[in-house]
Amino acid sequence: MSDPRARAEDLVHAFGQAWEARDIDAITGFLHQDVAYQNVPAPILHGRDRVRAFITPSLKAVERMVWEFKATTASADGAKVLTERVDTFVFAEGAVVVPLMGIFEIAGDLIVRWRDYCDLGAFARATQAIGRTVSPALEGSQ
Amino acid sequence: MSDPRARAEDLVHAFGQAWEARDIDAITGFLHQDVAYQNVPAPILHGRDRVRAFITPSLKAVERMVWEFKATTASADGAKVLTERVDTFVFAEGAVVVPLMGIFEIAGDLIVRWRDYCDLGAFARATQAIGRTVSPALEGSQ
Repeated sequence: MSDPRARAEDLVHAFGQAWEARDIDAITGFLHQDVAYQNVPAPILHGRDRVRAFITPSLKAVERMVWEFKATTASADGAKVLTERVDTFVFAEGAVVVPLMGIFEIAGDLIVRWRDYCDLGAFARATQAIGRTVSPALEGSQ
Repeated sequence: MSDPRARAEDLVHAFGQAWEARDIDAITGFLHQDVAYQNVPAPILHGRDRVRAFITPSLKAVERMVWEFKATTASADGAKVLTERVDTFVFAEGAVVVPLMGIFEIAGDLIVRWRDYCDLGAFARATQAIGRTVSPALEGSQ
């Protein structure tokens, strides 16, 4: 696979598979040490360790997770991958379905910047509707 | 320009320029008669006439409008264009800056589906902060 575009798209799809496997080591293995991750416009999380700490409780809380890619396109140099997705978090209490778009900036084989865009208020309401609390990192923007 | 990808990206950029020109005829000229437009997860607006009625008041209210494209990528067949943008609405009372991503589905030279993803709550708060009201079509999802 020498096409930079296809290579970058495959990397992001594999990242989604790591999420579906709820494998925190596999997930963080895709992230650059200095990754910047943001649920826009919530605060940016800086660094792989900070991101790991942020996502670990969610991964432990869910029974199942789905990353459905509705569209994936990349820049010619493979440096940017843009996605339209539906992320589903299945808890014991019920499922939270989040339609969103996300952009992944790639350097080498690692994600250096990752920004997801969804309606955070709708996400919070759907989460609270099944009796769960939302990550404090997202509460600032509700 | 025979590359479908570049052609589709150019079309979306030209659509953004029509918005910046606040030219309702130019804007709707890019839309298929049966276009479906959604500020996800707000209700879908169906049809060019409905979209025109939705955006006309906003266009009249703003003094200036900026569509900053931070990233634009397209599928090989040019059928989908994914964007990361910062849309700015400049009113007499102040500016509302909206970071977002959007996907445009293209058929021929027309946009047939258009979905934008932003934090609608943040958008509503920024709009209300300068003393303006938010379009009723977006209020259902606040």
